[in-house]
Amino acid sequence: MLLARVIGTVVSTRKDPSMEGLKFLLLRPVDVDGKESGAPVVAVDAVGAGMHEVVMYATGSSARQTVATKDRPCDAVIMGIVDSWDVAGEMKYRKGADR
Amino acid sequence: MLLARVIGTVVSTRKDPSMEGLKFLLLRPVDVDGKESGAPVVAVDAVGAGMHEVVMYATGSSARQTVATKDRPCDAVIMGIVDSWDVAGEMKYRKGADR
Amino acid sequence: MLLARVIGTVVSTRKDPSMEGLKFLLLRPVDVDGKESGAPVVAVDAVGAGMHEVVMYATGSSARQTVATKDRPCDAVIMGIVDSWDVAGEMKYRKGADR
Amino acid sequence: MLLARVIGTVVSTRKDPSMEGLKFLLLRPVDVDGKESGAPVVAVDAVGAGMHEVVMYATGSSARQTVATKDRPCDAVIMGIVDSWDVAGEMKYRKGADR
Amino acid sequence: MLLARVIGTVVSTRKDPSMEGLKFLLLRPVDVDGKESGAPVVAVDAVGAGMHEVVMYATGSSARQTVATKDRPCDAVIMGIVDSWDVAGEMKYRKGADR
Repeated sequence: MLLARVIGTVVSTRKDPSMEGLKFLLLRPVDVDGKESGAPVVAVDAVGAGMHEVVMYATGSSARQTVATKDRPCDAVIMGIVDSWDVAGEMKYRKGADR
Repeated sequence: MLLARVIGTVVSTRKDPSMEGLKFLLLRPVDVDGKESGAPVVAVDAVGAGMHEVVMYATGSSARQTVATKDRPCDAVIMGIVDSWDVAGEMKYRKGADR
Repeated sequence: MLLARVIGTVVSTRKDPSMEGLKFLLLRPVDVDGKESGAPVVAVDAVGAGMHEVVMYATGSSARQTVATKDRPCDAVIMGIVDSWDVAGEMKYRKGADR
Repeated sequence: MLLARVIGTVVSTRKDPSMEGLKFLLLRPVDVDGKESGAPVVAVDAVGAGMHEVVMYATGSSARQTVATKDRPCDAVIMGIVDSWDVAGEMKYRKGADR
Repeated sequence: MLLARVIGTVVSTRKDPSMEGLKFLLLRPVDVDGKESGAPVVAVDAVGAGMHEVVMYATGSSARQTVATKDRPCDAVIMGIVDSWDVAGEMKYRKGADR
């Protein structure tokens, strides 16, 4: 899984019928310093993530192993909201404590 | 999924028989500012996307979870046409409003 | 799928028994200007591609969805020979018209 | 698989129910000189790895082939703790001998 | 598949039980000029490759399509030893003729 911050939303009316009712969030991975980095990713939200939160997302066939995404053309799913992450004991992010 | 713009088409007469009748579009991913970036990708169109539109595409085995692509040697499928996407409430793209 | 040019061949006598009889071609992806770019890829040829031709190849589990590659340790397959591709109507490649 | 060092931990209370009870470690791949490099990865620990140890992790559907991760939205699993690795006979890492 | 050179070995005593008895080799991909390039990869050896040889390896679920790796948390397998590879007829590598 990768750590990413929820940075936005994506609206799509015309889509594969199996994707109806799913929520698409725009993520951006964070680097080892917690800084947003690289290309944005669209993920289905399986856990009720909020804007600006840091989440974990799974890609590939693993993204279809949630109730919401099973057998759907979905290759990225948010499967966890991050409370905190640290590097060698140094807290790099704690939910609610940044921004 | 990744956000990408439809930039062109690919014609292939001699192909795996299971791919007959599918439409191949050339996509280019967009970065967090909406700018086209990186290598082009050939995706099967499962939703009737048009030239210059921004779409979402799924890759890997997830690209085979549409009626059009099931059990085929297809690793990228357009599964949604994007109406709009935003970063923290700031609209970065709205269909029909650019180009 | 990615667009790539067939640039060479790979010979392997000692290989997984299930790969016997398959033809390995060396590909190099092309960028949006049609220029070869990045690392070479070894793909099984499922369509009879020729040297210097531009092809489409599929990767991952999708590379096992052809008769030639089913259930084999193959993660890249040429599944289409490209006749032509264009960007916004401008022809970037037409088979037989380059090199 | 990739070689990576365990650099931290990730805490997630709100997650896909199937992920309950799993331990999430933060890894960073190492390059050919053994130096940490690139984006951090969150992996489920299937072998009891410790902080600062070098491990091997598997990604994609292969990450679901352990008892701990089967059928779960997990795309990275630590499946081996590295005792040592070498390049052409030159030891680059031996567990317990660095840091 | 990618072309890579066998550059070393990895020893792991504590690992997923299903990985017992497998041989882990350290590979480094080669670029179009045959030069080692990029991050090292740990692959299971399914064909008896030797140090310094150039091999082909498959990744992802395709890495589990050999007898040695079936149903195991393995995402990279050496499935062929390369005798030679060429670019447009120019031999870039012939087994036994380099180093």
